[in-house]
Amino acid sequence: MGKYRAVIDMGSNSVRLVIYYESAEGASYEVDNIKNTIRLSAFLNEYNEIVEQGIAEVVRVLTQYRQLCEARTVSSVTGVATATVRKARNKDDFLRRIRETTGFSFRVLSGEEEAYYGYLAVVNSMCVTEGFTIDIGGASSELVRISNRRLVESHSFPFGAVTLTRQFFQGEIPTTEELAALEKYITDQFTSHPWLREKELPIVGMGGTVRNLAKVHQRMMRYPFASLHHYEMRKYQVDAVFHYLKDLSPVQMQGVEGLSKERADIVIAGIVIIKALLNHIGSERFIVSNKGLRDGVYMESRLKTQSSVLVEDVIEEGIRTLMIHYKVNVLHARHVECLCRTLFEQLAKEGLHGYGTEEWLLLSIAAHLHDIGRTINLGEWQQHTFYLMVHVLLPGLTHKQRLLAALIASYKGPKRMQQLAAPYESMITEAEQQMAEQLGILLLMARALDRTESQQVSEVMLARTSDVIILHCRGNVDGRSLEAKTLEEHKKKFKKQFGLPLQIKWMKP
Amino acid sequence: MGKYRAVIDMGSNSVRLVIYYESAEGASYEVDNIKNTIRLSAFLNEYNEIVEQGIAEVVRVLTQYRQLCEARTVSSVTGVATATVRKARNKDDFLRRIRETTGFSFRVLSGEEEAYYGYLAVVNSMCVTEGFTIDIGGASSELVRISNRRLVESHSFPFGAVTLTRQFFQGEIPTTEELAALEKYITDQFTSHPWLREKELPIVGMGGTVRNLAKVHQRMMRYPFASLHHYEMRKYQVDAVFHYLKDLSPVQMQGVEGLSKERADIVIAGIVIIKALLNHIGSERFIVSNKGLRDGVYMESRLKTQSSVLVEDVIEEGIRTLMIHYKVNVLHARHVECLCRTLFEQLAKEGLHGYGTEEWLLLSIAAHLHDIGRTINLGEWQQHTFYLMVHVLLPGLTHKQRLLAALIASYKGPKRMQQLAAPYESMITEAEQQMAEQLGILLLMARALDRTESQQVSEVMLARTSDVIILHCRGNVDGRSLEAKTLEEHKKKFKKQFGLPLQIKWMKP
Repeated sequence: MGKYRAVIDMGSNSVRLVIYYESAEGASYEVDNIKNTIRLSAFLNEYNEIVEQGIAEVVRVLTQYRQLCEARTVSSVTGVATATVRKARNKDDFLRRIRETTGFSFRVLSGEEEAYYGYLAVVNSMCVTEGFTIDIGGASSELVRISNRRLVESHSFPFGAVTLTRQFFQGEIPTTEELAALEKYITDQFTSHPWLREKELPIVGMGGTVRNLAKVHQRMMRYPFASLHHYEMRKYQVDAVFHYLKDLSPVQMQGVEGLSKERADIVIAGIVIIKALLNHIGSERFIVSNKGLRDGVYMESRLKTQSSVLVEDVIEEGIRTLMIHYKVNVLHARHVECLCRTLFEQLAKEGLHGYGTEEWLLLSIAAHLHDIGRTINLGEWQQHTFYLMVHVLLPGLTHKQRLLAALIASYKGPKRMQQLAAPYESMITEAEQQMAEQLGILLLMARALDRTESQQVSEVMLARTSDVIILHCRGNVDGRSLEAKTLEEHKKKFKKQFGLPLQIKWMKP
Repeated sequence: MGKYRAVIDMGSNSVRLVIYYESAEGASYEVDNIKNTIRLSAFLNEYNEIVEQGIAEVVRVLTQYRQLCEARTVSSVTGVATATVRKARNKDDFLRRIRETTGFSFRVLSGEEEAYYGYLAVVNSMCVTEGFTIDIGGASSELVRISNRRLVESHSFPFGAVTLTRQFFQGEIPTTEELAALEKYITDQFTSHPWLREKELPIVGMGGTVRNLAKVHQRMMRYPFASLHHYEMRKYQVDAVFHYLKDLSPVQMQGVEGLSKERADIVIAGIVIIKALLNHIGSERFIVSNKGLRDGVYMESRLKTQSSVLVEDVIEEGIRTLMIHYKVNVLHARHVECLCRTLFEQLAKEGLHGYGTEEWLLLSIAAHLHDIGRTINLGEWQQHTFYLMVHVLLPGLTHKQRLLAALIASYKGPKRMQQLAAPYESMITEAEQQMAEQLGILLLMARALDRTESQQVSEVMLARTSDVIILHCRGNVDGRSLEAKTLEEHKKKFKKQFGLPLQIKWMKP
């Protein structure tokens, strides 16, 4: 039986509950995610005490979260609190009262811990070897320098989207002077950390400001791919969103597509932090992470029984999880991947394609996941595989990689592929589509070679003569097998894509 | 742990293996479905013996099915054989040799049993109370009269798509005389069964001929809904496909979209059976069933431990299965349905809508299944719920019902609904879209009222004054609860759709 586990993140802007489901076989996914924008930082009085009204607000919200956790029979809840509680003089009393009234215990994270959990969420859900992360909260912002996937430097800056807004902006629309003063203030803070000086490394962003920035930009661009995680923006695109938003009145802000109403008043200050950082570091690439602090906390609690909380291979782990979730026949999938590998390599050797590691990765992912659509419906399962691969989270991959792998995995023929690819045409070139078609055919052939899912074909070898490609297949099959019959259906497509007719020879083991 | 179960259907035209997965909780679905068109009936010699070559073909195919079953660790295989084996004088020897070489045992079904299993598949996957079924095979065709969901009459006619083609058609394209002679022959056979005389009852069709007829028609119509099961055709539409196909040469047939290449030569004779039956019975409605003999055999083996092999409520059972498969929080879903019921009934009483039983059914289905998209991705889960409800099999429902229930379940706002509905606009009227919107809002409200999924709101009551609708909510919640906050978000939509503003009052239990 699976179980439910929850994390509550008591931030300075919002208090959020995330409930995760973990299957007995080890696959896990989010089942609920709910937040209340309490603005806890606004309940700190001049003595840095959380006032009664603030405590009451938190208790009220947590009581409801308690109900949700009980309804879902959540087996463990991890509570963490960040900047505002960290700063509060009455934090012990505050947390004790919460524990007594709601039953939830909270751990107050240090700035370093907060930075660490954000980092952990990023390196376990993206392929980032070198770069920076920034997690923009309501009252603090954590920066991390990642090198060789390790956290090598980190700092928690005592400013965030809520506190900077209150500190720097007087009216409803910030003036040019206010914006300049804010940016200068932030940059000055960065300057005292010499490790924030590497050029040309990507910055991965987390937190509500970052998500909203990305959502607004996706709407502006009519971006077709429905995913925030791993959305990539250039510096000038961040600037474009900033310039679009900075002069809007509160009423106009409420109408901005993609922008949360509860964040409209603090989003500008948050974006200035990102702008200042991009300028200061000299980076051109800003990558959005939809995984953050709470996911890092969850990952630690889930992985702590293992030797390392760092997932060794993010992509492989994501594929493994999906294969469990969608009940893939693992032996079959692995054998198909193995056959793909041989076809891919030998065709390259014969000069029929020039693809390398990057394309092989896509084909390998497609080989593992091509069957996942079958759980939706056996009819038109290729279309369902495409839908799932485009919409489920496949950690470690860019949007383009997910899209191309999905096209390869669901390949059936050129017409169908064009239909599936049509909404996404702004994301891929014609050459990439052609590549997906060619690799799609290799996958069709490999699947045919294991149509009985019982690994009868143990070996394939390609030979090229001047006018034909000969495929020698060794195993317990012959020209009248299901394997042969299915393979026969793809010969025409092979010839069309690779220019040479395919001839198949069957050999006993 | 779940398990795999298989059925092999040795028919006169093809031998088919279907593998079903059954989860420990009782949900089941098809994971593989494979056929070989052996044309066993063509291997009967003049003494009605299956010749050696035919036996070898069957053994060859079954050996491969054995591999597939072993690879999937199938725990039980049920083999059934129909008309050709029934007729074969050497059937005992034939089946013994199969058993010895492949390990598969086959039960030879009588014509009545064959009719019964087709009937069972239909009444367990469709809401058919009164009507007929016809299962067109290669060498026999089974007809059943259903009354009050029971099989009250049945007969197995000794002709099918393969045998009639061989018997009546000389050349590649049947002549007008041949077609007339065939139709007369079939009608004569029907005439000797007086129970084949009720008018205006629908006919449910099964088998390859029926599926191909439907597929060709769907392509002709550019039908947007990707589902064969419960596809409904009018008599004139069956005629239209017949007229389109009857004069085509074999080469032209190979190019017909939706038509299986292996069936092209026998499809006309099969369609003539359908035409003759529709004419003879005087029925206007022909409904396609994608479930047939093999599913009936499977259902019996799965349900035999229960008191009845007849599923009591097909729709309810389908919903239950999906809720298990997609890990729906059952208490929450049931409570949401209960809240929907009150809102639906009280709004009707206040004269704000005029919907009845049929619309309530849609809302009830939507209330149970609205969360299923969450397993795909919590982001945009409404869209995923829509996708799943349109593409998974929801037995007992027409395509229009599935589509409308999906629109209600995934309702978020008018714009999003129009996007989702756009590809299907030929299937629904504007009035139906408006209905889906109104019921969608009721579901949004009911979901809000149980946002913490813990059934805090025990009772709702509606009261109407001249210019406002007042919603009294009783329970452990107040105006600052998650429930209240979420409900607040839908007040505008309510007013827009029902014409009156909504006012909410919270009362303690």
